[in-house]
Amino acid sequence: MFKQRLISGIILVLIAFVTLYYGGFLTFFVVGAISLIGVFELLRVIQMEKSALGVIVYTGSVLYYLLLLLGLEQYVMPLALLVLILLIAVYVFTFPKYEISSIAISYFALFYVTVMLSCIYRIRMLSDGAYMVVLVFLSAWGNDTLAYCTGRLIGKHKMSPILSPKKTVEGAIGGVIGAGLLGCLYGLFAKQFLSVNYNLIVVFGIVCAVGGLISIIGDLGASAIKRNYDIKDYSHLIPGHGGILDRFDSIIFTAPIIYYMLVMVVGLK
Amino acid sequence: MFKQRLISGIILVLIAFVTLYYGGFLTFFVVGAISLIGVFELLRVIQMEKSALGVIVYTGSVLYYLLLLLGLEQYVMPLALLVLILLIAVYVFTFPKYEISSIAISYFALFYVTVMLSCIYRIRMLSDGAYMVVLVFLSAWGNDTLAYCTGRLIGKHKMSPILSPKKTVEGAIGGVIGAGLLGCLYGLFAKQFLSVNYNLIVVFGIVCAVGGLISIIGDLGASAIKRNYDIKDYSHLIPGHGGILDRFDSIIFTAPIIYYMLVMVVGLK
Repeated sequence: MFKQRLISGIILVLIAFVTLYYGGFLTFFVVGAISLIGVFELLRVIQMEKSALGVIVYTGSVLYYLLLLLGLEQYVMPLALLVLILLIAVYVFTFPKYEISSIAISYFALFYVTVMLSCIYRIRMLSDGAYMVVLVFLSAWGNDTLAYCTGRLIGKHKMSPILSPKKTVEGAIGGVIGAGLLGCLYGLFAKQFLSVNYNLIVVFGIVCAVGGLISIIGDLGASAIKRNYDIKDYSHLIPGHGGILDRFDSIIFTAPIIYYMLVMVVGLK
Repeated sequence: MFKQRLISGIILVLIAFVTLYYGGFLTFFVVGAISLIGVFELLRVIQMEKSALGVIVYTGSVLYYLLLLLGLEQYVMPLALLVLILLIAVYVFTFPKYEISSIAISYFALFYVTVMLSCIYRIRMLSDGAYMVVLVFLSAWGNDTLAYCTGRLIGKHKMSPILSPKKTVEGAIGGVIGAGLLGCLYGLFAKQFLSVNYNLIVVFGIVCAVGGLISIIGDLGASAIKRNYDIKDYSHLIPGHGGILDRFDSIIFTAPIIYYMLVMVVGLK
């Protein structure tokens, strides 16, 4: 089991590396496909993955990615409202087949998976995007690993006893500081390749620390949804790792926070 | 009961008239307040109106309106994702207090009520907005009234037997055609005051017919949600009419469809 997990982990990192290194259409298609699988996994939790609601959310996700590709972001909100109107149309004309909770969770899936994950592609398309996109993974997986190490070493106070009994406050703090330090180290490395008018070590450190903090919410969020429906994994797509939502749970949250920090605070375009 | 309904109906139309006639801050505050009450009513259905989830959605709604007021629409999507992240943060750190369905419905409320209703204000702020905003009410209430009349006269085939047993297909068709004709008539009237480079009678006719069609979904949608939770009215705010969501159910859907038709098809700014 450990060997299987390790091998598929390495393959996963290789796919991510190649995808994000080449950028452009390759990143577009891979991130888009991962989003669609993620939506499928989330809708399967409420057994709506093969319903009309699913078809509307998949179509909405594809159209959303096309708008990003074509640079037509002013149409994102009209598309989001169109998806809402279509979901309600299906809801009322098939009443009482679906509950409003299924409608709301389907709509939620569009944002939680598609819009949030699309930020990986959006970061990659920024200036120096190939370097910036590393921050998403550095803060999410860096935080996770270093929180685990710190927790094992000095962890005492449980953070979320019911949801994730092994996580400690000390571990969380260690993870956030650790992600920040990884960001600083990465800034030191990236400095050799990027010429920017801000201090890469400080900026990357702060970005990764904030990303690390938010990644904890993402990690716990994906677990909480599974708890609500009493399932162990979202799927078995990645041997030893579960599904897309199991493996990308924290990435889903670090991607938008890092994208908007880079665009709104650092001022990247 | 009928007298009470009539009186508060007249008062409601007067408030709407004055609010939309003066435009600017008055429209902003009234539409904003109606949105907040609407969100409150929807969250009360799932008993979340006084919860932390409610506080996040109310705050998100107020910030959303402030972004519209300040013309900072590029921050709407980051705000929407921030609301999502905060809802999930409350979800995980208070686990198992809330279910994911409550999180999703709270998030849904932000779009279903706040974003959709805000389009009334957005239409009013367009060029000739005072004339354009009438189309929202004309198609919603016009369709409703004329569908009722047509249905009473020639209605045979039930449209939505479980959800709304009195509505007929003939009534729906009559309502859509009727709303379209009202739009044409209104275009004939508006022609005297507006000088535009398109045919107002045709454009207003089509806009109102499409608005009327969508208003049916809005009307049934608000009823379906009530059915799911076995309640009669969303509140008793408007004597004889129920709550904001009971009275604005179809307006919620006509407002965005008419706003985006005016902006994206007619090309208003």
